[in-house]
Amino acid sequence: MQRVVIALGGNALLRRGAADTYDEMYAAARGAAERIADIAADGWEVVVTHGNGPQVGRILMQQEAAAKQVHPMPLDVCGAESQGQIGYLLQVTIGDVFFERGMERPVVTILTLTRVRAQDAAFRSPTKFVGPYFTEAQAHRREEQRGWVMRPDPHGGWRRVVPSPKPYSIVETPAIRQLIGAGMIVIAGGGGGVPVIEKGPRLIGKEGVVDKDLAAALLAHEVHADVLLILTDVPRVQRGFGSLMPEEIEQMDVAEAGRLLKRGEFGAGSMGPKVEAAVRFVRGGDRRAVIGELDEAREALQGTAGTAIVSKAP
Amino acid sequence: MQRVVIALGGNALLRRGAADTYDEMYAAARGAAERIADIAADGWEVVVTHGNGPQVGRILMQQEAAAKQVHPMPLDVCGAESQGQIGYLLQVTIGDVFFERGMERPVVTILTLTRVRAQDAAFRSPTKFVGPYFTEAQAHRREEQRGWVMRPDPHGGWRRVVPSPKPYSIVETPAIRQLIGAGMIVIAGGGGGVPVIEKGPRLIGKEGVVDKDLAAALLAHEVHADVLLILTDVPRVQRGFGSLMPEEIEQMDVAEAGRLLKRGEFGAGSMGPKVEAAVRFVRGGDRRAVIGELDEAREALQGTAGTAIVSKAP
Repeated sequence: MQRVVIALGGNALLRRGAADTYDEMYAAARGAAERIADIAADGWEVVVTHGNGPQVGRILMQQEAAAKQVHPMPLDVCGAESQGQIGYLLQVTIGDVFFERGMERPVVTILTLTRVRAQDAAFRSPTKFVGPYFTEAQAHRREEQRGWVMRPDPHGGWRRVVPSPKPYSIVETPAIRQLIGAGMIVIAGGGGGVPVIEKGPRLIGKEGVVDKDLAAALLAHEVHADVLLILTDVPRVQRGFGSLMPEEIEQMDVAEAGRLLKRGEFGAGSMGPKVEAAVRFVRGGDRRAVIGELDEAREALQGTAGTAIVSKAP
Repeated sequence: MQRVVIALGGNALLRRGAADTYDEMYAAARGAAERIADIAADGWEVVVTHGNGPQVGRILMQQEAAAKQVHPMPLDVCGAESQGQIGYLLQVTIGDVFFERGMERPVVTILTLTRVRAQDAAFRSPTKFVGPYFTEAQAHRREEQRGWVMRPDPHGGWRRVVPSPKPYSIVETPAIRQLIGAGMIVIAGGGGGVPVIEKGPRLIGKEGVVDKDLAAALLAHEVHADVLLILTDVPRVQRGFGSLMPEEIEQMDVAEAGRLLKRGEFGAGSMGPKVEAAVRFVRGGDRRAVIGELDEAREALQGTAGTAIVSKAP
């Protein structure tokens, strides 16, 4: 049986511009669940991983609003909370769709921790914006009182920035493998996993955000997936992103993808990291990554939609 | 190898009177982790379950304080969040203690859903207080606007009440069994699990609180545990609770426990439900439940501390 790791982008769970209500989140999760069921029905073993940006943002805003009554928790704890929240919604909706289609596959959510290196340069220069927007005066107060690093956000106002260290190992891989092997659909690595460093024998949670695409690539590697399927809201990767004549790519090999990455052809924002994650996964062996649109997940996996990244062009 | 389900009371994770800071929660989790490690070191297979009352209370207060900026999530989603939060703290601290003692046992947290009956009488008469305190006027506004059921709290002020339905099956039992069998320490059933009802083939999350002791008894039954160990902050169960001459019990059989329960000898508040859970578990076969103090967890399991509930007095 072939195995796929499906990485859902943040907007697969909270559609751009949608209100952040429970009904909207449920509807979005339900949409993703339909596509996951399509793939499971074709006989794939499935691991689902997902972003958590909007959801952690919500939790941080709630913590801030209640800071006078309830002591806020550090970001690593908030990340774990968001894994519970999103995992629950995905698990329930995937279970629903399976039952409606007469498929019986248990779905289970594993809280996931991701090892990062204490000496990762990201800890010295935090760059990832998280949480609510503040005025400059509020921002400086938080720098003094809480030791946060604050920066002006390109969208206006000031926000906290945290490190985005590179993942090198997933703590829960043995459990995840065990459960896939038993025929379950496993939800894991949410938000890239909670970043932890090793200090001697201890795992210490860090306030930071692991890139979810790189974590997905690592997870796919560690569970020996055949395919890494990264789902987003555009049908194909484009070269010459932002130029007058962007060009859609159906397939590229890792060498070509590496060259285009270096030239910044995919834009730095969202597609660059996805292609980089795809390259990392494919480079490890004779396997395939596909980047495509959520609505065409099954077709992307079958090779008739999306952008395939392969080890060597045929 | 013998198998134990360890049920941690809410105050095993946030000590009575302690500030609700991260440092306090971490220290409490660390204390519990030491006792869990004692038991694992003796060769037991271990499943850990825990309350979530104070933590869900925190999340509900945060949701309320931010309600104008961030749409609040229903209680079932908050329960899932709290499982992520507490599971993370327990998992990290248990892992730490194991490593320090040179023990290698992976620790994993499973998001847990608990099946309850749609026709459970609890859904018609909610009794469990949750979340922040309101004035009477605020309370009535919430009844109108959100459809909450509000009641005066014995401690003063008004609060939301939600149903506390009886659990009858744990959704994730197959996954939990699988992981224990692979030698892992499993954290599951947090807060009694998120209550779900079956509607045809679907699982629907409900706003309610499953009694965590009954859920622990059910979990222990479903994973075929030899012992259910319920840890709290008193050394032994007392009969004649609240009377002038309460009497500590070292051991009782289920028949005796049932009689004392009926007479209300344990008090309705916290010990009654624990004894009831112990009785339910033991009644199923030749096995044992022990109720004892967190600090004496190992001794309670060995039979030199706590109150043992056995199927038949020897």
